[in-house]
Amino acid sequence: MSVAGLKYYEDFRVGDVITLDARTISADEIIEFATEFDPAPFHLSEEGGRNSMLGHLSASGWHTCCIAMRMQCDAFVLNTASRGSPGVSQCKWLAPVGAGDTLSGTVTVVSARISASRPDMGLIAFMAELSNQSGNRVITIESIAMIDIRETGAPS
Amino acid sequence: MSVAGLKYYEDFRVGDVITLDARTISADEIIEFATEFDPAPFHLSEEGGRNSMLGHLSASGWHTCCIAMRMQCDAFVLNTASRGSPGVSQCKWLAPVGAGDTLSGTVTVVSARISASRPDMGLIAFMAELSNQSGNRVITIESIAMIDIRETGAPS
Repeated sequence: MSVAGLKYYEDFRVGDVITLDARTISADEIIEFATEFDPAPFHLSEEGGRNSMLGHLSASGWHTCCIAMRMQCDAFVLNTASRGSPGVSQCKWLAPVGAGDTLSGTVTVVSARISASRPDMGLIAFMAELSNQSGNRVITIESIAMIDIRETGAPS
Repeated sequence: MSVAGLKYYEDFRVGDVITLDARTISADEIIEFATEFDPAPFHLSEEGGRNSMLGHLSASGWHTCCIAMRMQCDAFVLNTASRGSPGVSQCKWLAPVGAGDTLSGTVTVVSARISASRPDMGLIAFMAELSNQSGNRVITIESIAMIDIRETGAPS
């Protein structure tokens, strides 16, 4: 049964652009994430960052992916009949994300088709693009989402 | 100056396979990660999982990526002259990761070349593959690493 207020496959069209709310990243969260998942010296401390190619503390690329996921959740995913995702077709870490950087961006609907094996859902490719406060793109992620098709039959 | 004991670009050859230490994932860490980064109902509680397509609590795919990164850090990245990564060329979430699952796997060197723009470093493509305790592959991730070339000149 379809749920009122929820977005379904049919509510996304190729070319649609969804705006993501901006988010500022702190040194503490960069270090906390890196300590758990990606403890390279340049993700763990200011000093380690200064001694690296980038010259400053920078977030793990995986952290930026996770922040982008949360921004997409808040913008539309949690309000969509989503079944999750089979994967990511590309992810580019284009510029470092440092402490105090504010990320903002968009998600664009790249393609949409009904699943051949599960005709009650669609497969939508979304391209997320985040930039920092200087307007430099820091990450692009193209991923696939499995989204229910709205039921149009008689009420159950 | 090259550092004794550290792995450099030349220490990786196409076809090399690195074994990752196994790791068991708890319900608590699945829920903690999802609460911060990917709060879909099927990542947040047993009940939400039961009501989903998968039928049980399952980890965010991004969480599995981050766990795979940590496993790679512990196996070799932290002992390598790595400058980070420009991105991921593909990531497939092949099967759900549930509470109590034990992930293990390998990383294979897929390709290696010296950077054209920065001849003091190489670009190595690594394919990470993790399976669960039943032998089902749960994730594959192909990513690029920027790794220093060992200096062979006179001591500085």
